Amino acid sequence: MQKKKVTARIPSGFLELLPKEQIEFNKMFSQIKETFELFGFLPIETPAVELKDVLLAKGGGETEKQVYRLSAKTGETDMCLHFDLTVPLARYVVQHMNDLTFPFRRYQMQKVWRGEGAQKGRYREFYQCDIDVIGTFCPLTDAEIPSVIYEVFQKLKIPKFTIGLNNRKFISGIFETFCPDSLLTDFFRIADKLPKIGVDAVRDELLNLGISLDDCDFLIRALSFQGTYSDLEDMFPDWKNANQLVRDGMAELESVYNGILAFGVPADYMRIDLGIIRGLDYYTGSVYETTLDEYPKIGSICSGGRYDDLCGYYTDRNLPGVGISIGLSRLFFQLKEAGWLDSSRSSTADVLVVSAEKAALQYSMQIANQFRRAGINCEVYLEDSKLHKQLKYADSLGIPYVVILGSEEMESGKIVLRNMITGLQALVLLPDAVREISGLKEPAVENRS
Amino acid sequence: MQKKKVTARIPSGFLELLPKEQIEFNKMFSQIKETFELFGFLPIETPAVELKDVLLAKGGGETEKQVYRLSAKTGETDMCLHFDLTVPLARYVVQHMNDLTFPFRRYQMQKVWRGEGAQKGRYREFYQCDIDVIGTFCPLTDAEIPSVIYEVFQKLKIPKFTIGLNNRKFISGIFETFCPDSLLTDFFRIADKLPKIGVDAVRDELLNLGISLDDCDFLIRALSFQGTYSDLEDMFPDWKNANQLVRDGMAELESVYNGILAFGVPADYMRIDLGIIRGLDYYTGSVYETTLDEYPKIGSICSGGRYDDLCGYYTDRNLPGVGISIGLSRLFFQLKEAGWLDSSRSSTADVLVVSAEKAALQYSMQIANQFRRAGINCEVYLEDSKLHKQLKYADSLGIPYVVILGSEEMESGKIVLRNMITGLQALVLLPDAVREISGLKEPAVENRS
Repeated sequence: MQKKKVTARIPSGFLELLPKEQIEFNKMFSQIKETFELFGFLPIETPAVELKDVLLAKGGGETEKQVYRLSAKTGETDMCLHFDLTVPLARYVVQHMNDLTFPFRRYQMQKVWRGEGAQKGRYREFYQCDIDVIGTFCPLTDAEIPSVIYEVFQKLKIPKFTIGLNNRKFISGIFETFCPDSLLTDFFRIADKLPKIGVDAVRDELLNLGISLDDCDFLIRALSFQGTYSDLEDMFPDWKNANQLVRDGMAELESVYNGILAFGVPADYMRIDLGIIRGLDYYTGSVYETTLDEYPKIGSICSGGRYDDLCGYYTDRNLPGVGISIGLSRLFFQLKEAGWLDSSRSSTADVLVVSAEKAALQYSMQIANQFRRAGINCEVYLEDSKLHKQLKYADSLGIPYVVILGSEEMESGKIVLRNMITGLQALVLLPDAVREISGLKEPAVENRS
Repeated sequence: MQKKKVTARIPSGFLELLPKEQIEFNKMFSQIKETFELFGFLPIETPAVELKDVLLAKGGGETEKQVYRLSAKTGETDMCLHFDLTVPLARYVVQHMNDLTFPFRRYQMQKVWRGEGAQKGRYREFYQCDIDVIGTFCPLTDAEIPSVIYEVFQKLKIPKFTIGLNNRKFISGIFETFCPDSLLTDFFRIADKLPKIGVDAVRDELLNLGISLDDCDFLIRALSFQGTYSDLEDMFPDWKNANQLVRDGMAELESVYNGILAFGVPADYMRIDLGIIRGLDYYTGSVYETTLDEYPKIGSICSGGRYDDLCGYYTDRNLPGVGISIGLSRLFFQLKEAGWLDSSRSSTADVLVVSAEKAALQYSMQIANQFRRAGINCEVYLEDSKLHKQLKYADSLGIPYVVILGSEEMESGKIVLRNMITGLQALVLLPDAVREISGLKEPAVENRS
């Protein structure tokens, strides 16, 4: 009796790639990792699973609704999948406090899960690539974080982007100059929606708070500011006479803005943007968002900021820090949609060794070993197939070179090297083949710009 | 009011590493990945989450008990975490059939989850590193798989190991020579326990099946065989007159054994081991286990085999294949316990740039950029701290070099390079510093042997 077949499919809202896309994704992943390490960030990896009371120590809000709970027949029901890498970091830092050196500079690149309603480019499982520096108030650290991101995106060769910088103290101070600070949370909630709902709707909501029309317009003009630090000084010439928050925020903005330049980020890749709010609580100083100049609709592809107290739910010790996160799965999807992915390679193999006759198979295996020893990714076609079928296999996988071996080659010691793109082939010595194939290593990096 | 603190901890049975251990783990991970690609295997990654009916299509047994089910307030309850990478591979191959080229050679390195009872070195979340070749009966593929593993373990520089090879057809044929094949499943179940329960207990259980004492002893002698293909021929001189299963199995063993040698695996790294059973069903031809010669108690660190029909639960199309899996988390733990890990580097940074005076900080950032452009992982100490505190930071992180900059260095254009291991320091030009620091790249690879 034939058993009924189950339809092969994945849950909705989950991303799965074909091998050639996976190669592109993995390349981006490696380049991000290498750049984080270039700045001396240390890797950590936390379990995907955290205890419920630890993960939801803060509790409430969307997060708790979206968290995936686990249950197994053999036991516990008190576990959840993590929904970001920040809560696990806070837990990690407290748990391993005595084994860490501060300032603790860590990177972490893992999947996270959120039971969100599925929509295009939004996933229930996605990669976050985070860096954070814990245990320092130094504003230069706030400047270093975006400079790392600049280097990452340069390495990824993504289209022109702008790193936006704001400071929560400054914008709070501006608000509190003429509004009661009890309304600050409401202000942030409304201001955060500006890009979505537009100026008029924001003005209406601010008016509803009891703010005067003039003040509303001033606040909206402030939130709409984008420019250099010197532009900002022009806009707020009297800032030195303003309240403490404004003065502190302005001083931080100056340090961080100039620090980012000192780290080598070109001025046209960054701007101060007072409209960057980043949610209602959590951040206490610098905040960042990064947007692609030509694809503004994508929104921020990399965001973060400074927080005064990372680990407050787990310890009395005050641990300030600053961090940023790249939503890699989403970025990958968006770049793919925009046709901006490097798809120059659809195969890991640089060369396929094929046998024109069965007697050459063992020789093929030896030649392949020599390619591998030279650092060339090499596959051998092992099945006893006609030559045209073997070439077709290389072609459909996008393997750029094929080496063809038969009894003549076994005698002469030379090999036939075929360039699968041009279709040209030549009888060459192995070291010459190695040299030619090595020439195509990492071509994508050069081809793009 | 002070809020009660939650204790920072992870669920039992989960592995979490300190940064310096994570560096070692990640190095192993990269080396495995590189070796898989050296043989032209293609990367895939499947969601951690599969639909219940897909994941448990086979159903029953320990697996179903150990699977973690997911639930979220916003929706579905029909999802589970995958417990291996083989079921997801089967599903992937069927789902993406028309976009894949066969034979499909894929590698996959991901976490899997099992709700097992926690015990030392066993984890509920662990990495599997799998390679499989789908859509071929070619016995040379059965030989290639262990040869990839040989190269992986050479690259990892793990202690001397032996790849054991058996063939399920052969051992089934031997059994069916004088026992009814209805008892074969029981025989496998009992034979699988030989290393655990010993010869006497196995003999008793076989006798209970109704097998004669002589036959029991012959079977146990067969199961205890370990040797070369030629030793095997000596032990079964009449195999050509035996049943079809014995003859087919023997022919496959010969092809695979000699194939492994042809792929360049030294003879003392492999042996035929008729005691390798690998569970009750699933495998239909070659089976492999790999053990560390000096640490037999660890058991198999890498296992796999050939199966006739990978995707039977999802499609009528017959897809034979062969694969192997490295249990990386467990291997890492065991190598660590045995003191066999490469702990030569506890930092990602090759050099820390420190400022002897505050005025040098901006210069430090520029020098750091130059190191990075030369491909050297470089961190800048950004806080305004005393020199000895900065050196202590480098020391506690195990950063091997420190560059010290002050106003003299800013004027002279030379930099002070301090070797943190020897404590020696010298005033050198930047290119000389780059040369010296580059010399320590990848030292671990050479130091071990």
